[in-house]
This record gives sequence, structure tokens and C-alpha cells, in this order.
Amino acid sequence: MNFQAGQLTLVCGFCVLLVGVGNLWLCMPEGSSQCSMPVFSWNNVRKLLPSNKFPGSIEQQTNRVPKEKRGTYPQHVLDALTWDEILLARSVLLNASLLVEGRPTVHSISLDTPEKEEVLKWKPGQPVQPRRAYAETVLFGETHKIVVDLVTGTLVSDEIHHGPGYPSLSLDDISLVETLPYNYPPFLQSLRDRGLPMSDIICLPISPGWFGIPDEEGKRLLKSLCYSRNGTVNIFMRPVEGIVMLIDLDTKQILEYIDEKKVRIPKAEGTDYRLLAQKPPLLKSLNPISLEQPLGPSFKVDGNLVRWANWEFHVRPDPRAGVIVSQAVFHDPETGHGRSVLYQGFASELFVPYMDPAEGWYFKTYMDAGEYGLGVLAMSLEPLNDCPRNAHYFDAVFAGADGNPYMTPRILCVFESYASDIAWRHSESLVQDSAIREVRPKVTLVVRIVGSVGNYDYILDWEFQTDGVLRVKVGMSGLLMVEATSVDSIEKNKVGDLHGTLVAENTIGVFHDHFINFHLDLDVDGLANTFIKKVLKRRNVANNESPRKSYWTTENQVAETENDAKIRLKSFEPSEFHIVNSEKRTRLGNPVGYRLIPGFTADSLLSSDDPPQQRAAFIDNQIWVTPYNRSELWAGGQFVYQSHDNDNLAVWSNRNRPIEGTDIVLWHTMGFHHVPCQEDFPIMPTLTGSFQLKPTNFFERNPILKTQPNYPSELPKCSIDLVDS
Amino acid sequence: MNFQAGQLTLVCGFCVLLVGVGNLWLCMPEGSSQCSMPVFSWNNVRKLLPSNKFPGSIEQQTNRVPKEKRGTYPQHVLDALTWDEILLARSVLLNASLLVEGRPTVHSISLDTPEKEEVLKWKPGQPVQPRRAYAETVLFGETHKIVVDLVTGTLVSDEIHHGPGYPSLSLDDISLVETLPYNYPPFLQSLRDRGLPMSDIICLPISPGWFGIPDEEGKRLLKSLCYSRNGTVNIFMRPVEGIVMLIDLDTKQILEYIDEKKVRIPKAEGTDYRLLAQKPPLLKSLNPISLEQPLGPSFKVDGNLVRWANWEFHVRPDPRAGVIVSQAVFHDPETGHGRSVLYQGFASELFVPYMDPAEGWYFKTYMDAGEYGLGVLAMSLEPLNDCPRNAHYFDAVFAGADGNPYMTPRILCVFESYASDIAWRHSESLVQDSAIREVRPKVTLVVRIVGSVGNYDYILDWEFQTDGVLRVKVGMSGLLMVEATSVDSIEKNKVGDLHGTLVAENTIGVFHDHFINFHLDLDVDGLANTFIKKVLKRRNVANNESPRKSYWTTENQVAETENDAKIRLKSFEPSEFHIVNSEKRTRLGNPVGYRLIPGFTADSLLSSDDPPQQRAAFIDNQIWVTPYNRSELWAGGQFVYQSHDNDNLAVWSNRNRPIEGTDIVLWHTMGFHHVPCQEDFPIMPTLTGSFQLKPTNFFERNPILKTQPNYPSELPKCSIDLVDS
Repeated sequence: MNFQAGQLTLVCGFCVLLVGVGNLWLCMPEGSSQCSMPVFSWNNVRKLLPSNKFPGSIEQQTNRVPKEKRGTYPQHVLDALTWDEILLARSVLLNASLLVEGRPTVHSISLDTPEKEEVLKWKPGQPVQPRRAYAETVLFGETHKIVVDLVTGTLVSDEIHHGPGYPSLSLDDISLVETLPYNYPPFLQSLRDRGLPMSDIICLPISPGWFGIPDEEGKRLLKSLCYSRNGTVNIFMRPVEGIVMLIDLDTKQILEYIDEKKVRIPKAEGTDYRLLAQKPPLLKSLNPISLEQPLGPSFKVDGNLVRWANWEFHVRPDPRAGVIVSQAVFHDPETGHGRSVLYQGFASELFVPYMDPAEGWYFKTYMDAGEYGLGVLAMSLEPLNDCPRNAHYFDAVFAGADGNPYMTPRILCVFESYASDIAWRHSESLVQDSAIREVRPKVTLVVRIVGSVGNYDYILDWEFQTDGVLRVKVGMSGLLMVEATSVDSIEKNKVGDLHGTLVAENTIGVFHDHFINFHLDLDVDGLANTFIKKVLKRRNVANNESPRKSYWTTENQVAETENDAKIRLKSFEPSEFHIVNSEKRTRLGNPVGYRLIPGFTADSLLSSDDPPQQRAAFIDNQIWVTPYNRSELWAGGQFVYQSHDNDNLAVWSNRNRPIEGTDIVLWHTMGFHHVPCQEDFPIMPTLTGSFQLKPTNFFERNPILKTQPNYPSELPKCSIDLVDS
Repeated sequence: MNFQAGQLTLVCGFCVLLVGVGNLWLCMPEGSSQCSMPVFSWNNVRKLLPSNKFPGSIEQQTNRVPKEKRGTYPQHVLDALTWDEILLARSVLLNASLLVEGRPTVHSISLDTPEKEEVLKWKPGQPVQPRRAYAETVLFGETHKIVVDLVTGTLVSDEIHHGPGYPSLSLDDISLVETLPYNYPPFLQSLRDRGLPMSDIICLPISPGWFGIPDEEGKRLLKSLCYSRNGTVNIFMRPVEGIVMLIDLDTKQILEYIDEKKVRIPKAEGTDYRLLAQKPPLLKSLNPISLEQPLGPSFKVDGNLVRWANWEFHVRPDPRAGVIVSQAVFHDPETGHGRSVLYQGFASELFVPYMDPAEGWYFKTYMDAGEYGLGVLAMSLEPLNDCPRNAHYFDAVFAGADGNPYMTPRILCVFESYASDIAWRHSESLVQDSAIREVRPKVTLVVRIVGSVGNYDYILDWEFQTDGVLRVKVGMSGLLMVEATSVDSIEKNKVGDLHGTLVAENTIGVFHDHFINFHLDLDVDGLANTFIKKVLKRRNVANNESPRKSYWTTENQVAETENDAKIRLKSFEPSEFHIVNSEKRTRLGNPVGYRLIPGFTADSLLSSDDPPQQRAAFIDNQIWVTPYNRSELWAGGQFVYQSHDNDNLAVWSNRNRPIEGTDIVLWHTMGFHHVPCQEDFPIMPTLTGSFQLKPTNFFERNPILKTQPNYPSELPKCSIDLVDS
């Protein structure tokens, strides 16, 4: 039995044993000696050998996947599809002639999320129903939206998508760049002209965006740019500048070939970021520092349910969003009752436009979630470095282009963190014989996934605090997308023409943005929610009423329809953004609510008639609120690949539906303008931003008043033996 | 020998031994059996007994202060004054008749910071000179600025301050509220009218601000408001609303007495935040989690110099700023050379205006650093809860109102933190047989002080990163400043009139702001620095030049004079804020620089003609740049108490001096609008904001490329014995 992801047969003879965590991670079903590894989907067979080069954290062992690891039986209606469910969906597709053996046409098979009503009705212990798979395939140039009932093993629906936009790239689409260029004489000629051996060159699959170019209409396209891996693993620093290929994904042909300029490939020297490639002396290591929990972590994992402190939530890997957090409930310390906070939250789109209008660059306007898939591109996390000692890891099972499942082990981790921060404190010496110092340290629970979207690494953290705050953190690291240039020093050139910063000799770190939208289906203490913009307004004091001339107060602006909730943040009009339960008030009469505290919120500088801005119109505002609608999941639209401007959050929201006192979804876009600098070369120190969802009159009082401090008696006794074990 | 802080004789029979950290903390000089405790300055004698109620972390032991703990000999020209130096300065004041025994008139004695030139010239090992003390006293209604040479033991200068503004409150000023009201018949009558026993009432010293009221001109004033401590230690939740006393600090008389209204004092129930006051059940504790460093921390402390990773800096407690970080130098991993980053950085003012124009509230427009002193109000940190296990603590020695020294043990801590964050990473599977996962965990070094400014606790962190980033974090916790009201439910009342949120029955958490200004004397790789606003600007693409219609590029706006560097942040005009060395470029020709990445930056809503706004005009902009001037240290002015609008950052900067290519100071104001909520009652979960100073083309490449990952062999073996020890 072969496990195929498109034409990429995932073959290896090893499986992975995590040392230190004590879990056995195995990747293949019984009866097979093969093992799908944590793969970056652009990979091919020969690259799929497991790593054995990391310092002691991973060992290999030949073994097979026991049933429980395959997640054969879903335990929760929101669980991701299991291995067997994907196989079942596949067989239904085959039977319905929506899939043909040997023809890899599947773009995704994932959970068809039930209606919210069905999910809310379902209780643990009941039969896990409904279970449906949602598949996207492209057959004979037509996009099919297929729903399969996994309980009955039958096809529910097969709908053809009309209008612009295609599903995310399939693993089969991606594999084209590994074959087509190398059989294309003009490309081979270009390489010969430049004296580049074919074996040094790697071509990447680049989404082409959409620009209304007549020749490109109606075709499913891919662009490809190439890089040299001669002398470095950091191919992104060695672009073969000027060569652009336009590929028809359905006919599998190169439609257009451009070799614009022959700029030299920047040097390999100094680009390798791996430890083994560093010339001594290395930086002196700090003494080991470790988060230790001698009694173990305080969270419990039951299937995909996580319980920690007063929180309980469901977490699952998702090929498109990376991770989806569902049904986050806070158990009120006063009543013990579970109170809903977040029905569902996830990264719904990630838009990364580059700022060079040149032929080889203008189209770089990535929508990473919808064009590639943040989960598809996530690789296994590295224990002890990506996540601390006591992390719990989750595997993902996704579908390849032929519909067969494959596994990415350790795609998610959950861990407790103590950053030496303080949850609350007060020192007081006014009131009694001895000074008061009451201090409570702050411990949080983090759910982490890292999407390695080509060059970039997005570290997505969902951080749960004991005080009810939910903080979403985005860290950006990885490698710049650079442009080769003949310029080796900016004193010799006009900087303004570079469209970026010279970060190394002949290497421009091109200006770009990152906009990441989060779909936040808050259900604050129930479904009937209202968005309130609480505006801080100056009041002038009438003559002699007070020695003061001014103060501020707040004005609640209730959003009745969607237009009222389109917020473009302004520095000089300070506001708070509350989602309140329209039917519940505290005992004091304050509306029960949560509020969004934005963090990094760069505004787009693209013109409103620029196609990338129109496609990614969710960045027009930093905040939107829509009524719950199961079909409106992705801010950039369902079919983002080559999408136009007709199906995205801005379009839906322009219907201006009523949103007061009903089930609503908050959408928030974080934004970062990135002007690269030399410190970003050859690999970028992480830049981090975050936003918070903070309980605001959700509780009657501080919900962590009754927590306890740290005690010296709880300090572990630790020793270390630095002789390698 | 008595150690007096004003009239408050600090007497106790105990000294403090820290268990678990292993350091002996002792507070008195030899020959004395007395011990000054970490005191909040509003305290009085009977409240100064040491704490023995904290869970196991502190024990007491009678002992004396060994010389080395008193810091008799300064080791660095920037070291704070030692115990003996304060005594010497005091004796010089006495000899010069600028101080009289038994008349506590000293407002501060602290280091007279040498000229930068002198500091830069000085090298460790040389005689620690110059050493001068700067003292502020108020004698017969006149403010004296006195400089004492501590090497020669002579008076250098005695200058009388003319114009508005007074020094910060002395401990003697503060003690007036403990006596005056209780001998004032109208106040006693008010208490009788309300049925309040005198022993329940505590009156607080409140700075009166300045509002141009004719009767108040030319007088040094204090207001006092009173609180009940009946049934709670959380007096701030029990205001005796409506009573306001106006006190003349020099004649020590009550000038004006108001008893405006007889609103009931809000109930005590539910206000106590101490662990021992909580009714069971407590919240279930999380399993112990501890930052463990079995080989010890990686930083070295030598006097007040701290060395960690590639950083080296000097740190000292300061009565006004809390903590001053000086001469932060980064040793470039490429050359090993120390490169200056920050000559001096500290919190220069903290402005907290409340938003109620009523008689008892309008004047609450605190300037905490200049009116009270963030260091004076900082209490000892609580090991294991304020700072993690391996923290190193520094003591402070400050001067009381009679000029004698007293000590606040453990006022600062320094520790390494590992928050499970990632310094840099990349996953890659494109280029070789096995997947690459290179991940470096992020460890930082934190300097922490907590200023307990009456009700509020400001947690100030200076966080050093291995990649050269310096992050300043402000956490706010503690107790709200509340107003008593007859309202017990907002449904019965118009909310808009409350000037705040009903956070408990009859308790309004009044709207307010926090603006905290940081004086950041950056010396980026030397003295010759320039401020550059790098503006991101849209460029429209001419017809058909590209399928794109727009992109952005950057434009450097060099600040030639101060007016060019007054930045009011705007969401829609994105910019970066660079301080570059005007004489140094990288090998690629980029200017060597650091940049400010602002975080919380609320803009003031007060009108420009409102006296509080004019006094605190440093909040007019979030960013200012001035030329270095030793006398311009405090953004609100040198004499902030009752200051007008004639001496502050805005006034200095209006001279519009040249600032290009010279020694400059960056001033940055963080801002928070605080709309209280019920979760802030009875004690606030910490709200945190931060800004970063980030190397930007300061290094030739990523300075932490050559760091190593965590290895499993470095994990400690830990056990815990939960039987109380």
C-alpha cells in the first residue's frame, strides 16, 4: 500500500520516537512498513527521509501506527477527520467517479463543520454525529465542492463552483515545479547561459495573484521562480533573478517564459543559518534555563479537549487555518458554571503583498491560508526549542492529492508558560502593623503552531490566562524574500529605487506587509451578542463649574448593522471595542462582555483600486462584525486562489445585515509593515505582535482574587548532569 | 542614634533574612540595634514592624548591617549615594546651616549625576570621582538646590529656586496628614456626624495639582482625602466621599475644609485582597512551575554593573525615577567590541489625570515621579512572586526628611526569563535529504522595580534581549481610585453622569489615564546621533508600467531641529523612528541605528488650555528629541509639585535647537486610557504595555545567528517535596 500525496509517494523506513516527552509517535497504519513524515508539501520523495541531525531530541525507530494514533474514532463532533474517515471519504469519491485512481485531483478533504446548532446540541458521550467530510477537487477544469456523510458512507452533495477563484494548490499542483521547468528547453538554455548546473536549481510554486490580465482569465495558473542551492540550504537568499515561468495547472504546460535580466545570484557565503554550518567561535551559551513542573503540567488533554485552570476548549489542526480553537468555556469561579466565550477562532487569512512593481515581483501578493494552507505548510515542532519541556503535542492527519491521508506528527503543542510576569499585586503599608505584599505570579496556557510558509515562519499562539484573557500572538521569523541586485553598497546608488533594504551584498530585502485576519466567533455568555464601540469623548467644562477645563467620558455606540461595526482604527478617536451579551447584565447592571484590545494594526497603503487590495479587502478595516453564517469562514473568501473582488468579508459585510442582539462574528486584522534591515539576514529574529480578548464586566469581580502565591516549599530540587546522555 | 525620616522615627527590632535566595539582608549600621524597613513613606512608626505573615518566604533575625551592605564605598561614578555619603552630605548641610537638627526640611539627597563627559572619561579602577550629592530642601518657604562635593566634604553651591513649582513631598510633609486632621475640630465634627470613629480613618496626602486659583498661589499646598479601614485593608475602596482638606505645608495649617456631601462609605465586604482574608474555597492551585537554572543564572553582578550575554550595563535605584539604567553597551559578536546603545534611560514622569471635574476630584492629576517619587514609593520585592527563583536583588539607600539615610531592601531585582518564546527559527524541507528545523529559544534578562504609588502598582521592566532589543514594559496592577456614590445599580441611573464604571455597590471606578514618559538618552554607537522619521509612502504606478497600481516605499525625513522630531502618532501615516549614528554606516552603507517601536500610545483627550495638560505638556506628542542637556532630565520639569507650564519638555523643545548629528535624547510617552470594569475590583489584574528599542542596521547581520539550541542533555532532573519545610 502506498500513501500518496499527489504524485509524491511518501516513502520512508523510519518512524519517530520522542525522547523526553515519553510519547511514542508513529505514522503508518498497520500492515504497512512505510511512514509519512512531517512534510513540507513542496517536498519530494528523496527529501522525505527523517531527520536524525537534531541534537538528541529525536530518535528513529521502525514501527507501525497503532490504531489509537490514527484517531480512527472521532470523540467529538468538532474533531478533525481521522485517518479512516479520510479513507472512507476517498472511497465515496471513487465510487461516485469524483476521483479516479492514479489521477490526483484532490485539493482538500477536511471536516465539514456542523451547523453551530448541531454542535451546541451535542454532548460528550453521545454518538459523534453528524460527521461529514468536505472535499474540494478540480476535475476537467471544474471545481467541485463535495460533501460526504461519514456515518452512512454516502455522497451528500456535489456542487460545481462558478465564478472566479480556485481551491488552494494541491500537492499535485505543487509538484509540477519539480518536473516541468527541467523539461523546458528555454529554461535549460537560461541556466546554460548563466552557467548554472540544473542540479543546483530549485524552482518554487508561487501563487500568481489576480490582476485582470486578459490572457490569464479562466485559467488556473502558477508562477515559478527559481533559486540556487549551491553552497547553502538558505535558497531564499540565492534567487535566480529575472526568470519567471507561468504554468497552466490544468494543462500542465508552461504558458509564458520570461528571462528578463541576468543579475548575478548573490553569494552563498554567510547565508546558512544551521548550527552545523557556523564557523567557530559560536556565541557562548547561557546556562541552561528550563520551565520545570516536577508534579507535571496542570492541564488535562482528553482527545482534542483541553482543560486547564478554569478554561476548557477544543483544539484541532486544520489544513487551511493551521489550528482551530473551539468552544472555549470559562468556568466561573463564583458559580462553577461553564460560561461560553469563544465558539470558534482561527487565522482566516494571511495576506503578504510585496512592494516591487517589477515583472518578477508585482504578483507577490500571497494569501497564504487560502492559496497554500497554514496547516498544510506547518511542519513538526521541535521539542525543547519550539515548545518547552512539558508540552503536549498533537498530530495532524490531512489528505493528499489522491485523497489518501498522511500525517504531520507534532503539528501543535500545548504547554504552560511562566514568563516571570505578575498576575496581580499590591504593596501597602498604610493600614496595619506590618507591610502587606500580596503578589500572584502569572502562569498561562499556550496552544502553538508554526506555519512555515515557504520562507516565512509564522508562530501562532493562543494564550489562555487564568483571569479570562485570551491573547493571540503572532511571531514572525524565518527568511526574507529577497531580490538579487547588482548593487553591493547603497552609497553608490539611489536607495529609493531599490524597493527594499540592502541586507547583504547584492541582496535586497524587499518591503512588504503582513496582514493576518482572525475569525473570532465570540459567544459571550451565550448567543445573543451585540457589538458596542465605546468612544472616549472630551467634555469641556462650562465656565467656573470646575477649576478643570476638560475631562473625558464614554459614549456607547451600539452597532445595529454591519456598517456600524466597520472600524478603521484612529489614534485620535480612542475607543474600546466590546462584544456584550444583549440579554445579560452583572448584578450591578453592567452589560456582560468581552473586549478586543488591538495590538499591531498597520493600515494598508495600497490604493483602493489595486487588485491585491480589492481581493484582500478584509484589510480595509481592522475590525468587522458579521452575523454568524456557516459559509462565511475565510476573510479572503472560500476560493482565494486567483480570486477577484466578489467574494470576501468586505462583500459579505456590505449587505449591512442586522447584527444587534444576535449571534455575531468578530473579525480582526493585525498588520505589520516590514522594512527589512541587516539584522534580518540571513534569518530573522522573531518579531511579535498580539491582541487580547479581555473580560470586561464578564465577571462580577476579579476572577483570580482567590489564587495563591508561590511558596518556597514548592520549589523543586534540581540537578543537572552535563555529560551527554 | 536615631534614624529619622522626617518626624517618622523608623524603629524596629528586626532585620530581614531572605530564605531561598541565600542572601543576608540587613538594614542598620554597626553600633545600632535599629532597623529601617522597606517603608512606604506615608507610613508611621507603629506600622513599621517587619512582615512575618508571608508564606514562608521571609524570616526575621536580629542583626546589624555589615559595612558592605551599606555600600560605604561607591565603585562607579554612577553609583547611587551610599549610606555614608548621605551622612556626609547631611553633615555638610548642617555645617552650612542649610539644615537644622530637629527640623526635617530635606526633600531629597541623591547623586548629582556628573556631566556625561566626565562619566565617559571615567574607567573602572580609577578613583571614583567626581562624587557630588544634589539636595533639595525647603527652608523658610524657599526651595534650595544644593550641591555638595563628597570628595572634599564641602558645599559646592546653594541656589534658590525662583518661579513656580516645588520639590517632591518630603516624608515630613507626608506625615502631616497623620496629625493635622485629628486636631482639627471641623473634621472631628464631620466624623461624628457620620458616626465614624477616628481610629477607623486614614487620611492621605494628595498633591493638589495647579489650576491658577488666586488663593492658592505662592503657597506650598497639600490636599487630604480620607478613607475608612474598618473591616478591610483595602482602604481605597472605602472613601469618605466629600471631605477635602487643603493644607499649607509650610505653616502646617488647614487652610480650607470642605464637607460637601454625606455619601455612605461603600461596604468593606469583598474588598480585602489578601489570601488570609479569602473565604474558602480558594481557587485550585496549578501545579508548581518554576524557572530552574541548575548551574545558576548566566548574569554577573559586580557592584551595580550587570553583565549578561553580550550586554553590560549599570543599574541604580533612584528616589524619583525608581531605577536608572546607564551605559548599556552591547559587545558585538563579530568584533568583540563594546558598542554603546543607551547612555541613560529611566521613567521621567508618570501623569495620571482623573476624569471627574467635581470638587473632591478635579485636582487628581498626579505627576507621580516628581510629586512623590517612584523610588521613594517602591517597596521591597517579594521573592518568588515578584521575581523568579534566581533573581538578584539590589537595596536602595535614600535620605529621609532630616537628611539621614534609610534603606529599602530588595527594591530592584535582576533575573533571567524564559517565556517559551522563540528567538528565531526556520523549518525547511526543500533543499536536502532531511528536513531542517533550526530553532533557538528566547531567553531575556529583566531588571524590575515596582512602584506602589498609593493605590497603584507600576511594574517597570527593562528587558534585555540577546538580539540587541531593549524592551521597556509597564505593568499596572493594584487598586482603583474609586468614588463613593449612592448608586448601587446602573439600571436605576444615567450612566453618563457617573464619570466612571460602577465596579461594586456604591463604588465608581473613575475614568483616568496613565501617561508615562521615558527619558532615553541613546548613544547609538557613539555620541553623534540623528533622528530620522522613515515615512512609508504610497507610490502609484503609472499606466501599464505594472499590473499593480500601487506599492509603498520609504522616505527618510532627517530631523534637523527639535520641531522636526515632535511626533504625534497617526494610524494612517505609518512611520518608523530611527536614531542613527550620523558618522557610521554598515559595510553595505546603511546608517547604523536603533529604532523605537511604540506600543501603547494613547493620546490625551484633555483640552490644550486645561492646566493639567499644560503642566504635563510632554504628552502633547508621543515622541520628542532634544539635544543632550544635563539639566533636562524630567519631562514634567525639575519642580513638578504645583508646577505651571513654564518648565517642562515642551518648553525646552520649543527652543527648536539643532539636533542633527549630535548628542541627542529621545523622549517617549506611553499612554493608557483606563475605563475600569468589575474585574478591576477589588484588585486589578495586571494590564501591560511595552515599547522596544530595536537594532536596525546596527549589526552587519543577525547577531544571534551563532547561538545554540536547547539540548535534552541540559534538562535538569527535578524533584519536589511538598511537605512544608
